[in-house]
Amino acid sequence: MISKPKVRFIKSLQVKKYRLAEQCFLVQGAKAVSEVLASDFTVEMLCATPSFLREGYRKDKAKEVIETTEKELTALGSVEFNTAALAVVRIKPPIRPSIASTGFTLVLDDIRDPGNLGTIIRTADWYGIRTIFASEETTDIYSPKVINATMGSFLRVSVHYAPLEEMLSGVKVPVYGAFLDGKDIHRMEFGKAGCLVIGNESKGISPAVAARVTERVTIPRYGKAESLNASVATAIILDNLHRH
Amino acid sequence: MISKPKVRFIKSLQVKKYRLAEQCFLVQGAKAVSEVLASDFTVEMLCATPSFLREGYRKDKAKEVIETTEKELTALGSVEFNTAALAVVRIKPPIRPSIASTGFTLVLDDIRDPGNLGTIIRTADWYGIRTIFASEETTDIYSPKVINATMGSFLRVSVHYAPLEEMLSGVKVPVYGAFLDGKDIHRMEFGKAGCLVIGNESKGISPAVAARVTERVTIPRYGKAESLNASVATAIILDNLHRH
Repeated sequence: MISKPKVRFIKSLQVKKYRLAEQCFLVQGAKAVSEVLASDFTVEMLCATPSFLREGYRKDKAKEVIETTEKELTALGSVEFNTAALAVVRIKPPIRPSIASTGFTLVLDDIRDPGNLGTIIRTADWYGIRTIFASEETTDIYSPKVINATMGSFLRVSVHYAPLEEMLSGVKVPVYGAFLDGKDIHRMEFGKAGCLVIGNESKGISPAVAARVTERVTIPRYGKAESLNASVATAIILDNLHRH
Repeated sequence: MISKPKVRFIKSLQVKKYRLAEQCFLVQGAKAVSEVLASDFTVEMLCATPSFLREGYRKDKAKEVIETTEKELTALGSVEFNTAALAVVRIKPPIRPSIASTGFTLVLDDIRDPGNLGTIIRTADWYGIRTIFASEETTDIYSPKVINATMGSFLRVSVHYAPLEEMLSGVKVPVYGAFLDGKDIHRMEFGKAGCLVIGNESKGISPAVAARVTERVTIPRYGKAESLNASVATAIILDNLHRH
């Protein structure tokens, strides 16, 4: 049984303002919660059904464990069909890494859709990218929709909000930017290091950030769609970056 | 001003049962509505603001035109910020094309998420794919979420619901299927024709359909995510199919 003040606290974390104030976010579902318990994130509170708690996950990692019914869990969270567990997880203190001179760094200029951001983080994880820089207007990575769409990849990919213009000035690696009128990525030889900039879903890369792009690239089109979804375009370019 | 019975009729089309009964679906937003007016789809009803109606789109193509306020439109539709137009469009009569012996055909085995289906249709359109076969359990292409996510590509890509096992039996072209343990798509030479089968978001390709796959393919992984989003995986494979 979970108390009303705790229900209110957990529900408040669906809202960015309260996540910022509390420096906590929600992780939902058996798989993601078991992974966060096995990670180096601090778990402030674990709400789980008796059957999840019997499973042998690292529930000792949680500062507080509350046994709940499936019905209570469904009412608590924002995910339908979460009938196992929900964790309140502490946001890690921000660090300001610089752009690495080896490997690829992803740079997101104003990605607004939570599903897109989550999917981009998942895809970055697939391609071994550990660091993403995002403009301050980019949607909040700690929103439940983003966390859910990452399918656990938020544990391995760190997202840093930073002024992109500044971040990208003086960078020593090529800065690739996705445009509709750049060089055909099928005809390019990418090196082993660089940044890839992906722009907003409808407006693309902003002029200020575009000025930092050293190579405009394009996914060749064979049909008639005017554009690709931002997370799809990111994935296709990441795949091309990794071909050797 | 739009009458209450018409409001009810339009709202009913957000539900599959009523779309089937009426053989109509909704198209929302200035861009998609202007495109559907220019297409060979039959537009039963156009609800639009005076400023949209002044724009010179083919409103004569609509059997009925209702001038609405922005507020009425927002209340009518399922899309936030649609302040221009909504169309009630007739579903085209089903045809049963067979799998082409030239070019690529996309085959969807039980894609459930409307956003994924819409994004897959948009990506297929980018790569010039005109025909998609979908299992009968695949989400309904005419749901407003799917239509919106296609960004107008539903006009150029036709989706046919069919029993896939049957469809794929005796097919003369290679049948590629996306698995986690197939041949590396970066190391393959694809021909100029084939089918590409994409499976369900969590369960992948069903055993019955997998039995029709002649070549299991995999997107090489460089990091740690367990899998890719279905629409992302489709896009990456389509991009690889088109490299020559």
